[in-house]
Amino acid sequence: MRLHGYFRSSAAFRVRIALNLKGLSVEHVFHHLRHNAQNAPDFLALNPQGLVPALETDDGAVLTQSLAIIEWLDETFPDPPLRPGDAAQRARILAFALAIACDIHPVQNLKVLNRLRKLGQDDTGVQAWAAWANREGLAACETLVRAENSSFLFGDAPTLADLCLVPQLSNARRFKVDVSAFPRLLAVEANCLALPAFQQALPQNQPDFEP
Amino acid sequence: MRLHGYFRSSAAFRVRIALNLKGLSVEHVFHHLRHNAQNAPDFLALNPQGLVPALETDDGAVLTQSLAIIEWLDETFPDPPLRPGDAAQRARILAFALAIACDIHPVQNLKVLNRLRKLGQDDTGVQAWAAWANREGLAACETLVRAENSSFLFGDAPTLADLCLVPQLSNARRFKVDVSAFPRLLAVEANCLALPAFQQALPQNQPDFEP
Repeated sequence: MRLHGYFRSSAAFRVRIALNLKGLSVEHVFHHLRHNAQNAPDFLALNPQGLVPALETDDGAVLTQSLAIIEWLDETFPDPPLRPGDAAQRARILAFALAIACDIHPVQNLKVLNRLRKLGQDDTGVQAWAAWANREGLAACETLVRAENSSFLFGDAPTLADLCLVPQLSNARRFKVDVSAFPRLLAVEANCLALPAFQQALPQNQPDFEP
Repeated sequence: MRLHGYFRSSAAFRVRIALNLKGLSVEHVFHHLRHNAQNAPDFLALNPQGLVPALETDDGAVLTQSLAIIEWLDETFPDPPLRPGDAAQRARILAFALAIACDIHPVQNLKVLNRLRKLGQDDTGVQAWAAWANREGLAACETLVRAENSSFLFGDAPTLADLCLVPQLSNARRFKVDVSAFPRLLAVEANCLALPAFQQALPQNQPDFEP
């Protein structure tokens, strides 16, 4: 399998964690998003959305969208399960993941921030926008799981929800959000980062990393 | 079951279609988003994200996020299946849904448009932003399925992908996008709208509709 990613893409980061948890090793191809490599004709032929991640499977299928790739991995390599439990628990895990993947991440991604620059926002304005999206979204996430008391967001092992949380907290810090307002999320993050699967997936541990 | 929604919410629209396809009738509670009803304390206690839809199940669980609700419906009431096929086909259907639910819808939702107004954008600027998000996103969606030749996006029956497409096209028109650029999407939409499950879920057929 071949994963198309970028060290700083939090969506690719999610997939890297999933692959590591499943014990799968894949070929990594990195595309420099700030150099617009995702809009090169070769890459657009692979993924018309011009987004990473994209996963080429061993039988030649190209899968896109991080959550769809992770669901495919979970169905194809079920151990350990990333969305365990009954239908309601599975839905709660997915809802938390979507609260990040739909309601935070796309509002602060590179494409949107570039558009804000075109509308005349300077660095300060762009950062304030990204910080707002992270702060409001993570506050809702904190409330969603405040009542839980497990090591990870939904139980004693990481799920799809944790795979989305850790990269998003990393983004939030990059945009200078005061994450101390989210103690439950931070406690879970610490437990995640104690695991090699998360450590090895960190942006700074990718070969294309730039400080 | 009780569905919390709003006639114009395209996320609630997706869930209404799913319920209709499954032949499930539920109690509907409408919250006027433009009057900020989603931020009333009672509703925030139900869904801390302050978003519709939310589904209260018969055993008292509250499910949020339209795609998670639809996955729960599909697991709990499997007929007809909304994400049929093998793991790769299931991933492709989900990826298309996410290309709308993550990459178009949140970038043009009410919260983001209100934020743009605070940054000084007038009606024209706000509409141009929403049109941009729909136009770019739907162009990618069109490319994703251009090679297919089925009645619906992925085969001969509607799936989760179609449930996301029809409400998004409705948004695109509201923001004055020239949708004639998407012939494959329009052909599928016409087949969807021939079905009572889609018709009855239309915004204009909800009791809280306002022109």
